Amino acid sequence: MTKVAAGITTSLDGYVTGPGDGPGRGLGEGGERLHWWVFGGPWTYQDGARGQATGVDKAYLEEAEARFGAVVAGRTTYDVTGAWGGRNPFGVPMFVVTHRLEDAPPPDSGFRFAAGVGEAVAAAREAAGGRDVSVMGGAEVIRQALAAGLVDELSVTIAPVVLGGGKRLFDGFDQTVVLEHAGLRQSPFATHLTYRVQTPASRTAP
Amino acid sequence: MTKVAAGITTSLDGYVTGPGDGPGRGLGEGGERLHWWVFGGPWTYQDGARGQATGVDKAYLEEAEARFGAVVAGRTTYDVTGAWGGRNPFGVPMFVVTHRLEDAPPPDSGFRFAAGVGEAVAAAREAAGGRDVSVMGGAEVIRQALAAGLVDELSVTIAPVVLGGGKRLFDGFDQTVVLEHAGLRQSPFATHLTYRVQTPASRTAP
Repeated sequence: MTKVAAGITTSLDGYVTGPGDGPGRGLGEGGERLHWWVFGGPWTYQDGARGQATGVDKAYLEEAEARFGAVVAGRTTYDVTGAWGGRNPFGVPMFVVTHRLEDAPPPDSGFRFAAGVGEAVAAAREAAGGRDVSVMGGAEVIRQALAAGLVDELSVTIAPVVLGGGKRLFDGFDQTVVLEHAGLRQSPFATHLTYRVQTPASRTAP
Repeated sequence: MTKVAAGITTSLDGYVTGPGDGPGRGLGEGGERLHWWVFGGPWTYQDGARGQATGVDKAYLEEAEARFGAVVAGRTTYDVTGAWGGRNPFGVPMFVVTHRLEDAPPPDSGFRFAAGVGEAVAAAREAAGGRDVSVMGGAEVIRQALAAGLVDELSVTIAPVVLGGGKRLFDGFDQTVVLEHAGLRQSPFATHLTYRVQTPASRTAP
């Protein structure tokens, strides 16, 4: 059965960006360190030469790639990445949550716009062909999906840094969600925590 | 050489209490779940019958007990616990950070008051007899010690719950602290993350 898995990387103080993120400024001041695990070590927004994930981090990425049949992302993520250069790079259907449906990309870009997280997740489930659905972020879409009780599994990758500012994964999230441990791995660059969601915020506890 | 180790338990969204904590209300709504690991499972503020830590959690507590030669706590923690019944229960010297030195407890209580975190940590180092110093919290004292560059090791125990409100460990903390993994254990009730502090906030990076 298709599971919906949300996953994102934060600092130990819960930020998904450093202070001052935005277009041309990547993940903000110090935010590169969040994704050392993705690139196998230090990298910069300016420097084109990025390494590859290794070891535990590589396995983590490869397992995600093998598992997901569709991806849901938020509009900010889509915009900040420049729509990944204009073409869906994930090799599976991708749904972007946005209130601005009017500037939808051309069909052959591989992106589809959806008016809300519920609609996006439903379409992604349909498109995933029995595989799992990834809610890749950003933080707002993950909060919306969690609050709507749409998430079966939540992964938080914690980079070993306190950023002291930026955008928090759980900013403004005021519901209780009971979790159960479902996975734990650590590389020099990150701790990958995976949880099963036991009481999704919008459902009644069993 | 004596190391200063700060440690505290948070929810996945970074809260050290649930919403509405305070005297008589313990760790606030849902806050008990933060410390299931300490008591081996569910417990309540009202219920006197609390279990014991088991397995990984028990080992974690026992290693702390064996390691620390002095403890530093904040005044709120001291007050909320009712000064642990009026007597230092830790078996080692204990220093309480407070601005209200005038209501110091009697010397035979085993508590000593200190006017600031720097003074408390210095006195605790002196008293620890070559063993390590624990900064046990609350959150404010840990933030102050981190900001002052006094912490060599930071442990955050993450309970598998999103609380959606309460007091955040890193509320108002606006400095960058680079960390390095130094320990990782997980029980059904908690993930114990330990970090070496690489660039304490107040020191220059090496």
